[in-house]
Amino acid sequence: MKIIVDALGGDNAPLEILKGCQMAVKELNVEIALAGDEEKIKKCAGENGISLDKMELIGGGDEMDMHAEPATILKENSTTSMAAGLKALSEGKGDAFVSAGSTGALAVGATFIVKRLKGVKRPCIGSVMPSSDKPFMLLDCGANAECRPEMLRCFGVMGSTYMKQVMKMESPRVALANIGTEPEKGGELQKAAYALLKEEKNCNFIGNIEARDIPFGKADVVVADGFTGNMLLKMYEGTALALMKNIKGIFMKSIITKLSALMLKSGLSDFKKKMDYTEYGGAALLGVRKPVIKAHGSSNAKAFKNAIRQAVLFAETGVNEKITEAMEAEAEKAAL
Amino acid sequence: MKIIVDALGGDNAPLEILKGCQMAVKELNVEIALAGDEEKIKKCAGENGISLDKMELIGGGDEMDMHAEPATILKENSTTSMAAGLKALSEGKGDAFVSAGSTGALAVGATFIVKRLKGVKRPCIGSVMPSSDKPFMLLDCGANAECRPEMLRCFGVMGSTYMKQVMKMESPRVALANIGTEPEKGGELQKAAYALLKEEKNCNFIGNIEARDIPFGKADVVVADGFTGNMLLKMYEGTALALMKNIKGIFMKSIITKLSALMLKSGLSDFKKKMDYTEYGGAALLGVRKPVIKAHGSSNAKAFKNAIRQAVLFAETGVNEKITEAMEAEAEKAAL
Repeated sequence: MKIIVDALGGDNAPLEILKGCQMAVKELNVEIALAGDEEKIKKCAGENGISLDKMELIGGGDEMDMHAEPATILKENSTTSMAAGLKALSEGKGDAFVSAGSTGALAVGATFIVKRLKGVKRPCIGSVMPSSDKPFMLLDCGANAECRPEMLRCFGVMGSTYMKQVMKMESPRVALANIGTEPEKGGELQKAAYALLKEEKNCNFIGNIEARDIPFGKADVVVADGFTGNMLLKMYEGTALALMKNIKGIFMKSIITKLSALMLKSGLSDFKKKMDYTEYGGAALLGVRKPVIKAHGSSNAKAFKNAIRQAVLFAETGVNEKITEAMEAEAEKAAL
Repeated sequence: MKIIVDALGGDNAPLEILKGCQMAVKELNVEIALAGDEEKIKKCAGENGISLDKMELIGGGDEMDMHAEPATILKENSTTSMAAGLKALSEGKGDAFVSAGSTGALAVGATFIVKRLKGVKRPCIGSVMPSSDKPFMLLDCGANAECRPEMLRCFGVMGSTYMKQVMKMESPRVALANIGTEPEKGGELQKAAYALLKEEKNCNFIGNIEARDIPFGKADVVVADGFTGNMLLKMYEGTALALMKNIKGIFMKSIITKLSALMLKSGLSDFKKKMDYTEYGGAALLGVRKPVIKAHGSSNAKAFKNAIRQAVLFAETGVNEKITEAMEAEAEKAAL
């Protein structure tokens, strides 16, 4: 299996990206195709003693500007490392693509360069996140700020398929993020999406979920429009960070509290590992023809390696084939 | 000052409500008017040794059914304790109203029974919440699932006025919850609301805020449509609860971890107090002619007493007069 990597995307590129690729080559038995300015990549690898064994340089320019309009990636002469990687993916030069660069640009680029799966109107971003029970997927996390009900139905099918194939869940519980559990709750979008999801045979829809229940893992797939999903994702991250910062402050107060923290170390580190999103890799771009993974912008080597592992699983387990089957079944039903 | 209380609303009514009222009479120098079935109130007070000193019984029926459609409170013959309290408020039989009953019914009831402030199209629910810095207000927390841009402008003015008057903040920083900080981010609603808030002279608008920054207190007033606000509020609560549950589990693992937790007790209890929303009372219903406070449904006596204190402050500090002034200035400007 060959994974194409955006070598220059992300806050810690290229150093942590290349280190992550090296780990992936060793641990995951994959080949890597590095997209991006060859001089830069070689220089960084040389200076840091990183072997480029089993890594091919496929060219490309500099990183995508994080502040550029996402659509600039579509300019015909875009030579950014992200555009180069996506083009290589669409031309079959690898089995999946991983980037830690701009989420917006990756969503737009994947949609128009790699192209959509048959039956999927709008690709979306699905993030696998920890809960106090088992991990769950939240989608859309921000690719589509405004959605139609039909899109939310499709997100439910795609998220369910992903959790089934990649996370090996038998019958993922799919829920719609809403302000109450009753079917008539929410705005027009939620009411219509509820009705569509309820009829959908390709996912196990359990109804609405209130935000309060999401961190407890009461659903395996949480469906929302991209605006709401992005709010939920970032509120989850922010609240966890703010609380942990406060608790750290309590631990650091005195010699006695520091000693106490030491006694709690093993429990706390298990917990930290459970809550560490880098363990789960990155977010999956669902609904495009080839597997695309968005690694966290601040990924270190380990997080990036895990994103590559996720890309391998995404490609290996036939998620896209299953999504296409489900969408075709739906289209046939609609045509009757 | 006389506060009207929904004696039968909430999960722990009437016992905790009456106990909270008794605390309020002692500590806050207020009189109480209790709305709800007199037999029930007297029986509960008698059985639990609660003095009804400085508390007047103003009649009313049973509690509002939590699962009833909110609008049923408007039925002419509604004798629920909530409807009775709101009617008493609109007739000037008290200075403010506090209920731990259904939020939806309270929002509808206050809007149509107490009526809106001049210039306010849609009242909203503003919750004061803890951050890792100082408290902030999030609004709308769920009264209006779908909003127009003009409503979000009005929420900004009302939230700012409340934090200035009640929480004594000099120039509260007002921000719009959005999926990015740039003005062009979000859907049509956010783009239009951004433009209106930017021009609004009655609040210190600092731009968009991403959900990640909300728990760190990077704004004093966070404006959102009721759907988004409700999602943010409940995700905040749920994440904090889930994390604390996990940490408690780590503390309870063994004798050693239990002893360690004991050493951390004072720091943890300070932190718990800081994060305890019951310290801040309840949510304010902003935009109606008299102060209305929604106490948390599961309020205990202390939380309910704090909600009464918040109602006193709301009434005393002239929030509504200031909101009306701001709205009139706006209306005059529009008329020019």
